[in-house]
Amino acid sequence: MNFETVRYEDHESVRTIELNRPEALNAFSNQLFDDLTEAFLQSTADSSVKVVILTGAGRAFSAGADLQEMGRARSKPKHGLDGLLEAILEFPKPLIIAVNGLGVGIGATICGLADFCFMAEEARLRCPFSALGLTAEVGSTYTFPQLMGRQRASWFLMAAEWMSGEECARAGLVLEAVPLARLMDTVNEKARVLAGLPLASLEKTKSLIVAPHKAQLRATIAAENKGLADLMGSPGNVEALAAFREKRQPDFSGI
Amino acid sequence: MNFETVRYEDHESVRTIELNRPEALNAFSNQLFDDLTEAFLQSTADSSVKVVILTGAGRAFSAGADLQEMGRARSKPKHGLDGLLEAILEFPKPLIIAVNGLGVGIGATICGLADFCFMAEEARLRCPFSALGLTAEVGSTYTFPQLMGRQRASWFLMAAEWMSGEECARAGLVLEAVPLARLMDTVNEKARVLAGLPLASLEKTKSLIVAPHKAQLRATIAAENKGLADLMGSPGNVEALAAFREKRQPDFSGI
Amino acid sequence: MNFETVRYEDHESVRTIELNRPEALNAFSNQLFDDLTEAFLQSTADSSVKVVILTGAGRAFSAGADLQEMGRARSKPKHGLDGLLEAILEFPKPLIIAVNGLGVGIGATICGLADFCFMAEEARLRCPFSALGLTAEVGSTYTFPQLMGRQRASWFLMAAEWMSGEECARAGLVLEAVPLARLMDTVNEKARVLAGLPLASLEKTKSLIVAPHKAQLRATIAAENKGLADLMGSPGNVEALAAFREKRQPDFSGI
Repeated sequence: MNFETVRYEDHESVRTIELNRPEALNAFSNQLFDDLTEAFLQSTADSSVKVVILTGAGRAFSAGADLQEMGRARSKPKHGLDGLLEAILEFPKPLIIAVNGLGVGIGATICGLADFCFMAEEARLRCPFSALGLTAEVGSTYTFPQLMGRQRASWFLMAAEWMSGEECARAGLVLEAVPLARLMDTVNEKARVLAGLPLASLEKTKSLIVAPHKAQLRATIAAENKGLADLMGSPGNVEALAAFREKRQPDFSGI
Repeated sequence: MNFETVRYEDHESVRTIELNRPEALNAFSNQLFDDLTEAFLQSTADSSVKVVILTGAGRAFSAGADLQEMGRARSKPKHGLDGLLEAILEFPKPLIIAVNGLGVGIGATICGLADFCFMAEEARLRCPFSALGLTAEVGSTYTFPQLMGRQRASWFLMAAEWMSGEECARAGLVLEAVPLARLMDTVNEKARVLAGLPLASLEKTKSLIVAPHKAQLRATIAAENKGLADLMGSPGNVEALAAFREKRQPDFSGI
Repeated sequence: MNFETVRYEDHESVRTIELNRPEALNAFSNQLFDDLTEAFLQSTADSSVKVVILTGAGRAFSAGADLQEMGRARSKPKHGLDGLLEAILEFPKPLIIAVNGLGVGIGATICGLADFCFMAEEARLRCPFSALGLTAEVGSTYTFPQLMGRQRASWFLMAAEWMSGEECARAGLVLEAVPLARLMDTVNEKARVLAGLPLASLEKTKSLIVAPHKAQLRATIAAENKGLADLMGSPGNVEALAAFREKRQPDFSGI
């Protein structure tokens, strides 16, 4: 496989997939949604792959949806966000996310779908939805409360603040925050432990863990998508976009 | 609005509601159930309010149900506990609880229904249900395990012991315990962050977070109410009330 | 009652049940499944018992299923694992587990079914399922994520590594890890607190806490059992058993 916006490398049975738009802080363009979806589908099918690591090329993990691209006309993506989420929900093998740098929007909420996350102490995550006049997505309104309790999840998802690696580890959004210099060593070591075990066992245990939550996760994603659609063009969203264009702080008084 | 047992104040779009029966440690009389319910209903309807803070006047947060009143004949409350719970379950805006002093019974379990809780380090919470020969309420048998895991919730709800601010923060029942002198500054600062964001986004994200749990929460509250009714007049409850009247320790041996 | 593989002792209304096959590290033979099931059923029926403590005789808590016995022909057990799980799921009184030494397999996963667990700092738990070419059981794929979040549970259940008392306490699988020398004092003190309260209240609160999860727990146990059956004789399982027989490290490359 050969992708425009995704790079991958196999070491024994561990595949590392890199979001590879470093010049755009690995923001999710339609191409990246499609490439990453294909990468998951092919990693599912490839019996030589037992474990997948997802990380970002360059200094960011992912800046989230590509706002630059949003305005421009483009052909419809093959998979898009919905296809990517479905591919991750159905991905049967252990998925480890290595948050190597900043993660925003889907660059933060995707952590709720992984089996394991590790994060650089220097990295930060942010769910900017309220500040954009929008709402949370990628199932995070269900996965985050499961991982960290309703109160911490509500703060993370509503307040649009940055969360440090240490805060994310304390909350349980990632298993551990380590210095960036040691991040990939840590993650590779964990991947090696898993890859040394029978894949059928890993897959069965993963599917048992996910099964009780799958229907609700899909229902939540659908409800989030509807919520997002409803809020597009709402006063808060209009003000957020205007402020962005005009390079000023948004003013949500009375909104 | 003008209430006998509740006081409120608005600063910009943040409303602070105070339980205001300090002479009774803000115990919930029928009047307080009704006043607080009305306060929530009016805060829902008032489009100038974006965030509500709930706290207690004086040195207590709330001593729980007003046992003094329980014996006396009274007109039926308009809303009562059930009406209050429904108003909180349906309250669409961010609700922050500031536990400024002791909380007992509903003064502790109400924390499970809030979006965010902060607590004075000097404050303590207690779920005295077993010691009264009763059982837990306000949905806490569902919300507490979600927040802190089954084991810690079981201890908190069964053992009738006091929990310090630090223990509540470690458990996840509150986001943070801070010195009382800094409590309202901390809470006001958090409220300001939220109030600076578009209300439609805050409400949508809150409703998505709550949705997967609402039916179960209502079912649990109904089951708790039935359990409470069944235990009224049970040997444990009779002994607890007798010991209270006779100002002695209850003896639950063989009960 | 008089059991071959289980010993018990009552102090006032607290019953301590000991897994009593110390020469086999309290591994679960068919006899032990049956004896422990009977012990739970009789403790349910015995109105003088308010609280049950489960612990292990000797230096281990439980080495898990008795692999020695697995090969040998034997009469069908009366209750077996399924009967034991049902007896624990339906056990109405507070159950405290005291993990006094190593716990493997069901010796670790049983903690997910208890109301409270305490663990010796010196003890360790391990879920070796992947290393045996099998999958997790005893409802742990549901209970562990509820207690410690999906990521930590996935690691514990998939990676087959040892977890220290301190790690188990931090994860929330046990309430506290204390030095072995103080374990039973700690547990007995907690049991005394509970036993000093009315049993009807303890039972009602426990049943309310468990109720929302019972159907899913049973469904998960059934799915786990099917998963285990499917993996018996799978390439990973065959290699694990061969390596065990041949006293070598298993090689799961390509499996």
